[in-house]
Amino acid sequence: MVGAAPVARALKTRPAYAPGVRILDRLDRLYAIGGGPGANRPYGSPEEDAAHALVADWMREAALEVEVDAHGNLFGRSSVRDDIWVGSHLDSVPHGGRFDGPLGVVGGLEAVERAGCGSVVAFRGEEVGCIGSRALCAGRTSLPAAFFELHIEQGPVLELAGAPLGVVTNIVGYARGELVFEGRAGHAGTTPMNARDDALVAAAEAILRIREAARAIEGAVATVGRLTVEPGGSNVIPERVRISVDARAPDASRLDQLIQAIGFEPVHRTPPAAMGEGPRRVLLDEIETCGLPAVELSSGAGHDAGILAAAGVPSAMLFVRSLNGGVSHSPDELSSEEDIALAVEVLAASVESAARRTEAAK
Amino acid sequence: MVGAAPVARALKTRPAYAPGVRILDRLDRLYAIGGGPGANRPYGSPEEDAAHALVADWMREAALEVEVDAHGNLFGRSSVRDDIWVGSHLDSVPHGGRFDGPLGVVGGLEAVERAGCGSVVAFRGEEVGCIGSRALCAGRTSLPAAFFELHIEQGPVLELAGAPLGVVTNIVGYARGELVFEGRAGHAGTTPMNARDDALVAAAEAILRIREAARAIEGAVATVGRLTVEPGGSNVIPERVRISVDARAPDASRLDQLIQAIGFEPVHRTPPAAMGEGPRRVLLDEIETCGLPAVELSSGAGHDAGILAAAGVPSAMLFVRSLNGGVSHSPDELSSEEDIALAVEVLAASVESAARRTEAAK
Repeated sequence: MVGAAPVARALKTRPAYAPGVRILDRLDRLYAIGGGPGANRPYGSPEEDAAHALVADWMREAALEVEVDAHGNLFGRSSVRDDIWVGSHLDSVPHGGRFDGPLGVVGGLEAVERAGCGSVVAFRGEEVGCIGSRALCAGRTSLPAAFFELHIEQGPVLELAGAPLGVVTNIVGYARGELVFEGRAGHAGTTPMNARDDALVAAAEAILRIREAARAIEGAVATVGRLTVEPGGSNVIPERVRISVDARAPDASRLDQLIQAIGFEPVHRTPPAAMGEGPRRVLLDEIETCGLPAVELSSGAGHDAGILAAAGVPSAMLFVRSLNGGVSHSPDELSSEEDIALAVEVLAASVESAARRTEAAK
Repeated sequence: MVGAAPVARALKTRPAYAPGVRILDRLDRLYAIGGGPGANRPYGSPEEDAAHALVADWMREAALEVEVDAHGNLFGRSSVRDDIWVGSHLDSVPHGGRFDGPLGVVGGLEAVERAGCGSVVAFRGEEVGCIGSRALCAGRTSLPAAFFELHIEQGPVLELAGAPLGVVTNIVGYARGELVFEGRAGHAGTTPMNARDDALVAAAEAILRIREAARAIEGAVATVGRLTVEPGGSNVIPERVRISVDARAPDASRLDQLIQAIGFEPVHRTPPAAMGEGPRRVLLDEIETCGLPAVELSSGAGHDAGILAAAGVPSAMLFVRSLNGGVSHSPDELSSEEDIALAVEVLAASVESAARRTEAAK
């Protein structure tokens, strides 16, 4: 099963074969489960269960052995090198898109089927803090030899670079918290401009300062997504403004630098996770073999691959170009059939390659 | 009753007489009506009615003839020159202060009693758009020869100037509306800083620009008191932000200039109202006679005097220094007994002076 042949086969069969069509059809069937608008399969819902049941059927069709672990994670194991895992999650945010999660499971199934080796996994509850993969890794038993996660980028980097695929170098660390600005309430008509202590003006200055702080650090981002004004009357000078702060950076030192530049106390902090050198190299090689540009980028969002990497599993992520400016967590999420087909080719070849390498290392 | 004597009397009796004590006691009794916290006598409430009933009793004690017009406005008429009015309103905002409104009625009653001429008036529903004075002026019958309104400044100008009293030159015009900023929602982690179209960043820039626009125009103020973010998730780049805009300026040309500099379409606009030259001069003369600085200032808030001025009544406003930085519409509203006593002296002398002048003009 291993050797040079499969990659050559993938390249040769590409023009005549459209695996993207079956994948898109399956994504549509999963998307329809929640009843719309958008994907609605939150963690622990009957809709997440229904998605797992449907994918288990497809696993059986592909002659894989279906297993569910104590945490509800679903596995489809081939009979060869079932310790090379590919997969992602099937739960969604409310009103989510077609691709975030299911693409990695459905595309992973396609890759395992084509490679004839490895296992495909669907984790539970990724959108609410990677519940399933965390629970699995906490047990530390039956962890794989390698893990590949196919996922949409959820951002505009690949689209801007004109590249269908990218390989993740690391999953950024992030810090979340809040800043509160205290001013002095006053009558909007009777308080001269030079006698004001306007909490919203202070917050506006901070919002611009936060943007500049993130711009000044390579690979960092910072977002103020929530703002509340008290008392909130149109004719009252704001007395108190609270803003949320979401700060992310590719490594711990840049995250520290960003937190310091913004000047806030994080209430939650997740450290950055580096992807495994071995499986990253495998993905990059297969991308180059396909004649595609080998774009590397960091992931601004958390993923199951970050949890497995932190648990010591050599893990890598293959990103597929997101269209529509990289919009995600929205029904406007979009990736092309052509890009998805390329991703499955690279993923199938990578599973074979990893299987070959781990076999050789024995 | 008219002549030089009363003004001299006011000056002579000041050291021995404390009219501020009775006024503060009466303000406390009105303040207690709503049950707290703060004043609670909104327009049309039993509490506003109770305040009118209590003041009517005090009018009778002062041997004034009590009248209520078709709109619920309350009058206490002396038998001499009852077409010189002093007064203000008895309704309050929710959780309001002791002084806004009642000071002008209770202090006005004190002034009419001391002057022995004129009428005191308590208008209905000033805080909700000057309901009572508008209704009265709409009828255009039985309008007075002059109107004086005593009121707290509700701002810090007199406190900063170290002056107990001020005379209003004009009531500012104001424009209200909203600005909406449209951006593009996106994942807070996966969208690089240079690929963002963040509606909250655009709104923050506008908030600072609005402040600068108002600062650049003498006597103008502008306030953003309300802001809403959509979708409002801490990890989602803001897609739509709405801000309220309250812009005020002392005259129509500066208000136009301010609206243009801010760049918004007002949905509501109230033109500025100039105070009457005659009664303003009377107040300034009496302030100078008391040896006090003659500070003139514009009023950033609307008042019943603006409604009467717009209806052609020669009207003027006497402001008493607000302490606590000029806080108003709050239980922290504060003016001193001493300042209030000075205001009543000036007001009593002004009513006498106006009575004398209108008498002489006959």
